Amino acid sequence: MTEGIDKSNVLLDEERRLASHQEVKASIDDDVNARIKRESARVEPKESAEVAEVVRACAESRTVVVPQGGNTGLCGAATPDASGTQIVLNLSRMNRVHAIDTRNNTMTVEAGCVLANLQNTAEEAGRLFPLSLAAEGSCEIGGNLSTNAGGTAVLRYGNARELVLGLEVVLPSGEIWDGLRGLRKDNTGYDLKQLFIGAEGTLGVITAAVLKLFPLPKSHATAVVALQDSEKALALLDRALEACGERLTGFELFSDFCLSLVLKHFRETAAPFPRRFPHYVLMELSDTQSGEGVRALVESMLEAALEEKNILDAAVAQSDTQARAFWKLREFISEAQAHEGQNIKHDVSIPISSIADFISATDQDLIRAHAGVRMVTFGHLGDGNLHYNVSAPEGVAPDAFVKNTAAINRLVHDSVARFGGSISAEHGLGQLKREEIRRYKSSLELELMRKIKRTLDPHGIMNPGKVL
Amino acid sequence: MTEGIDKSNVLLDEERRLASHQEVKASIDDDVNARIKRESARVEPKESAEVAEVVRACAESRTVVVPQGGNTGLCGAATPDASGTQIVLNLSRMNRVHAIDTRNNTMTVEAGCVLANLQNTAEEAGRLFPLSLAAEGSCEIGGNLSTNAGGTAVLRYGNARELVLGLEVVLPSGEIWDGLRGLRKDNTGYDLKQLFIGAEGTLGVITAAVLKLFPLPKSHATAVVALQDSEKALALLDRALEACGERLTGFELFSDFCLSLVLKHFRETAAPFPRRFPHYVLMELSDTQSGEGVRALVESMLEAALEEKNILDAAVAQSDTQARAFWKLREFISEAQAHEGQNIKHDVSIPISSIADFISATDQDLIRAHAGVRMVTFGHLGDGNLHYNVSAPEGVAPDAFVKNTAAINRLVHDSVARFGGSISAEHGLGQLKREEIRRYKSSLELELMRKIKRTLDPHGIMNPGKVL
Repeated sequence: MTEGIDKSNVLLDEERRLASHQEVKASIDDDVNARIKRESARVEPKESAEVAEVVRACAESRTVVVPQGGNTGLCGAATPDASGTQIVLNLSRMNRVHAIDTRNNTMTVEAGCVLANLQNTAEEAGRLFPLSLAAEGSCEIGGNLSTNAGGTAVLRYGNARELVLGLEVVLPSGEIWDGLRGLRKDNTGYDLKQLFIGAEGTLGVITAAVLKLFPLPKSHATAVVALQDSEKALALLDRALEACGERLTGFELFSDFCLSLVLKHFRETAAPFPRRFPHYVLMELSDTQSGEGVRALVESMLEAALEEKNILDAAVAQSDTQARAFWKLREFISEAQAHEGQNIKHDVSIPISSIADFISATDQDLIRAHAGVRMVTFGHLGDGNLHYNVSAPEGVAPDAFVKNTAAINRLVHDSVARFGGSISAEHGLGQLKREEIRRYKSSLELELMRKIKRTLDPHGIMNPGKVL
Repeated sequence: MTEGIDKSNVLLDEERRLASHQEVKASIDDDVNARIKRESARVEPKESAEVAEVVRACAESRTVVVPQGGNTGLCGAATPDASGTQIVLNLSRMNRVHAIDTRNNTMTVEAGCVLANLQNTAEEAGRLFPLSLAAEGSCEIGGNLSTNAGGTAVLRYGNARELVLGLEVVLPSGEIWDGLRGLRKDNTGYDLKQLFIGAEGTLGVITAAVLKLFPLPKSHATAVVALQDSEKALALLDRALEACGERLTGFELFSDFCLSLVLKHFRETAAPFPRRFPHYVLMELSDTQSGEGVRALVESMLEAALEEKNILDAAVAQSDTQARAFWKLREFISEAQAHEGQNIKHDVSIPISSIADFISATDQDLIRAHAGVRMVTFGHLGDGNLHYNVSAPEGVAPDAFVKNTAAINRLVHDSVARFGGSISAEHGLGQLKREEIRRYKSSLELELMRKIKRTLDPHGIMNPGKVL
């Protein structure tokens, strides 16, 4: 039971998280490689009016603008192409919090605010801003909104899209659209902000936002649960939602192979049980009520599941330190696989009811096509989001193995499509999946997207070559 | 404490709710009056393919299509103009539930499904579909999504927009866009469904949707709280959110004048306290845990608030019957004011922190301009949404008083704008507020809306004369 704890303590130590994130990003940047990082100029405005001025000038001269925040994205959406003719518009200097309204439960912030700073600002005001992801120490809120970021709290609080009440956007014409409204209900026409959220900077530059705040949880409970297979993990998710409702704030799956990588590369970590099991779930409950309630709740739920043999073992953290140790087993996976050498990464989502079948079918197809491959299967099971990564067979050099990237992507993404899933759950398309998506999205949908792009950005100056 | 109850029992008896809704609607239809209800033809398709065929034919012949569901909207968005040349496309026969997936917590439904039927379908499967509003016995989900409906559960579960994962839409070209995805994370380009939600049928016809389901609450607690003023109600909202978090599923304000109308017109109702107070809040808590927890929680919170003199009195329902009686005091307000004669209605939202100031300033302005007017102030305070209605002074005939509608709308809406609010919180624009919104929305925003309309509906056949 971890009562009254600062959530940042429970999570991975920030520097380590960021290091891990940078390693993952570096390996992905290799994929996007030659195409990126040649900018003709770099502009770092401090006001929306300056952003507008720059964009207006670019519109007139038909110069391409690449909006950029913390540049921590994994798909190359915030980096210029190799032409050397594109201007990078970096918003990091626009990092002021304009207002925090604890009674309206909102804060009004500029696009360049670093996510972790916003979490802290909210907490100092006695509120929670729940968006939380590996890059939070350096990613910026404008980028989070432009990519509709996900992370570990989506199960309870939704994606970045659901955390926004209002936006200010500099349009490709250089005009400023002021949609900075702090209203929970507003049905006065098309909800324009939705267009810019998740558009990866291709429709305009988000310069400010009104964000939702939530009551600060006062108690937490963290548990690691051992399971036979992912089907049992889904049954546990059902049970947890039914018993705990919105107290369930985290539900993360990882396989024993993931655990073995973490234990191998991080000596300070320890296996949660005396013996090993095929799969594990990390569960977190949170409550605005202080006290022992959530720990008692998770314990009684896990006892019942054990009696019914739906789970194989369970450990409920008895201290902050233990909760932190449990989270490390999940959070260190990305870094552990990076230490192991490159692998072939996928960020996919599947209807939750089909996840077990998806894993089983795709595992089989992969093993048939590439004997000996090892799956690094983990992710935000509560959201249907898997990081389904494929490692080289034992004895095969990772660098040689990644030559199979195209074939393995094809196999995995085709399987995702068969199960009604998405080939980019939370990372976006950027440059990395811009071609790939054409195989999976209907031509009608692609054409609708192109029409909207042309309507808002008729000269194509706003981050071309990304998404579409 | 109302444990394990069917929520529909707590709410107003369905027939009465609908009667009340129809009376409110009739009085609003008077406003829209001569313009509506002359259709050249009425089409009632049973399949999306038939909808597509009709729209394609209309696109070719440049015939206007007016999509219609239960036609319970309050702003005339689903009714044709007076020309007699417009075709009504009614979706009521498309009323099948295609799938319910309790593990993915989704249901896939056709647009013509009546909202109350969907609530029941979800409940039979052990899940909650939380959208709840006065017209639920006859409104249809396609209309709910097209108008981004609000209602009594927004505080906890969000507007209709937030309850949708996927849509199927027949575009103004007659093409069918299949966006029926059941994914909680999908970042593969522009989120097109957002365009059609809340567009009031002006961008296409929603024919089916994948809706989110939630764990079914197993306990409820309902209380009526007496307060000095709306400022104290806001302080209570703060306290309730901090203590109860997501257990808080209802937070409704009404003034003593509202109560007096209900007590006058409904003999079966009773005042909640031996004496009268200036304002009341109806609170509802819900929990996925059964037992006495939520009642104990609301009691201890209200005791503390009483001790601190933040509230004047409080009554916690001791039975289902009493909870139902409390809800009637809030739910009968619309019908009670209809019995009293016409008044001038507003559906506005304000940043929650400014609501007390808004009420006080607007009350003063109105009384100064129209001596003796009586405010019927009630609404979903937890969402910042007020139904701020203005009744004739005592002794003035309501029919004569409503001649002041334009002047009073102007005064109220100008005040809303000064406080950063919206002149249509949950009802939409339709025909009723289409002109009015031009005063309050920037020309840039209106032009963006028009551009999107022209892009998706170049021939202007899809519900013209609504919204824009």
